[in-house]
Amino acid sequence: MATYQTDLPAIFGALSDQTRFAVVERLARGPAAVSELAEPFPMAGPSFLKHLKVLEQAGLIKSSKLGRVRTVQLAPESMRSVEDWIRAHRSTWEKRLDMLGQFLERDTQ
Amino acid sequence: MATYQTDLPAIFGALSDQTRFAVVERLARGPAAVSELAEPFPMAGPSFLKHLKVLEQAGLIKSSKLGRVRTVQLAPESMRSVEDWIRAHRSTWEKRLDMLGQFLERDTQ
Repeated sequence: MATYQTDLPAIFGALSDQTRFAVVERLARGPAAVSELAEPFPMAGPSFLKHLKVLEQAGLIKSSKLGRVRTVQLAPESMRSVEDWIRAHRSTWEKRLDMLGQFLERDTQ
Repeated sequence: MATYQTDLPAIFGALSDQTRFAVVERLARGPAAVSELAEPFPMAGPSFLKHLKVLEQAGLIKSSKLGRVRTVQLAPESMRSVEDWIRAHRSTWEKRLDMLGQFLERDTQ
């Protein structure tokens, strides 16, 4: 079985929650201050910060503090590892679909 | 915000568990009977079937029964929707990285 540098199930777990998924979608458009990020979500500050912590621990976001403002941005490397994983498996499916196609073609000739 | 036909957070939730992730990796190599799939996992049959149900409800696998043997296979469409989602966001990141590159280049000239 292939091994990956990143913990893919942890990344998938971080993305399995609607709030965290929406945060990632927002950050895909560019970095944002935590206060701006939290604004659309009807939850208490500490609950929102817990969601950010899950995303950060999964390696999906990075944050930096300047004065009193903490800015959050996406860490695209994690997304890339998900994409690489899917691509690696897709090539196997596609090979199988090709084989099926050849088999069906041979069958109809 | 973009909308997707598939429930991506549900797909990510299904993939967030090590057992289910391993099942998907196994099925990427080809279909398998439930008994064969369950074999490497040290858990009771009903627990394993629950994992398969989560994968099936997320649209990641399909199963069919012939006689007494239920065979499971991957449903690549769900994986494709994850890939499409990542690709859509990647183009935004890449644009931003390009803009940063141009800015830095202009700055050093």
